[in-house]
Amino acid sequence: MAASAGPEIERLIGLLSKLPGLGPRSARRAALALLKRREQLLLPLSDALSEAAARVKTCQVCGSLDTQDPCAICADPARDGTLICVVEEVGALWAMERAGAFRGRYHVLGGLLSALDGVGPDALRIGPLVSRAAEEGVREVILALPATVDGQTTAHYLADRLAGAGVSVTMLARGVPVGGELDWLDDGTIAQAMRARRPA
Amino acid sequence: MAASAGPEIERLIGLLSKLPGLGPRSARRAALALLKRREQLLLPLSDALSEAAARVKTCQVCGSLDTQDPCAICADPARDGTLICVVEEVGALWAMERAGAFRGRYHVLGGLLSALDGVGPDALRIGPLVSRAAEEGVREVILALPATVDGQTTAHYLADRLAGAGVSVTMLARGVPVGGELDWLDDGTIAQAMRARRPA
Repeated sequence: MAASAGPEIERLIGLLSKLPGLGPRSARRAALALLKRREQLLLPLSDALSEAAARVKTCQVCGSLDTQDPCAICADPARDGTLICVVEEVGALWAMERAGAFRGRYHVLGGLLSALDGVGPDALRIGPLVSRAAEEGVREVILALPATVDGQTTAHYLADRLAGAGVSVTMLARGVPVGGELDWLDDGTIAQAMRARRPA
Repeated sequence: MAASAGPEIERLIGLLSKLPGLGPRSARRAALALLKRREQLLLPLSDALSEAAARVKTCQVCGSLDTQDPCAICADPARDGTLICVVEEVGALWAMERAGAFRGRYHVLGGLLSALDGVGPDALRIGPLVSRAAEEGVREVILALPATVDGQTTAHYLADRLAGAGVSVTMLARGVPVGGELDWLDDGTIAQAMRARRPA
């Protein structure tokens, strides 16, 4: 960075560059945009961050982030308590909510089992999931985990752990994504879509 | 956004998505990263922003951003006061400083003349530039403006305005960028590099 920018700006750029999606260069552009729009952007963002730091907490039931604990979803009597959708991270929970295809409750694992990264079962919120699944009235646990090696390893492990809980354990369907043209799809997806074919 | 995220998080995401380089999706990922790394990232960034808001000001001489006014460059007696490098924005000034190829002073225009966007001379810091150029001891004004239509329009306009100031007005050279392979370069650059060819 330019020595002329002064330590405050350098520090700001350094922190911004730690955000996913912002490299050193774009962090510099972002810092500049903030400094140029002091009233409309810089100060509001500063407030929003301290506000979030002060008010956002982790839901003790499902592990999601919200300003209330239990979170709005866990506290919502309109949500179907017989269904638990297991997601890797809060980002996946948000994606599910945007899709609007699920009206049950969630359970955020906080990661995936990974031999490479040395992430074992104890590092994830698996114990609480098993206890929740064993609770009165829970019918089904839907494993909405990524279609990656770690995602599938985790799914299989969870299926074993949940075997005794007396709930049915399901996974998201695999197949051709909406708008997916066959000649642009990877072979694995096409093969799975073929294996999982169903009557038209 | 998920209604489950709570207004504080939504507001944070909304503000982050206003940063250059961050769309709605990446802003969501950034917000999540901030909330997950409360102590290391969220609180420090909040502080850095309010600190910058409180301390960073615009240099009354050159228009750059710094915590001191005049800025570190304008106040540095070691910089060559006979040279003034005109840049569009502070970002371009930082880029010049990173290149380390200029030891004079700067003048930040704060934009470019643009008929399309209705940016006229009065919207830019042109008056102050002309007065600075006319000051005792200034020898040369280097127009380091982008090689775009607006950039060149502005450069020609400035050359006219500075004609009477008794300084030589120069522009950055055009040509093949370092590491530039001819077959990847646009025709305009190749043509300019050919016109501006020099003895090897």
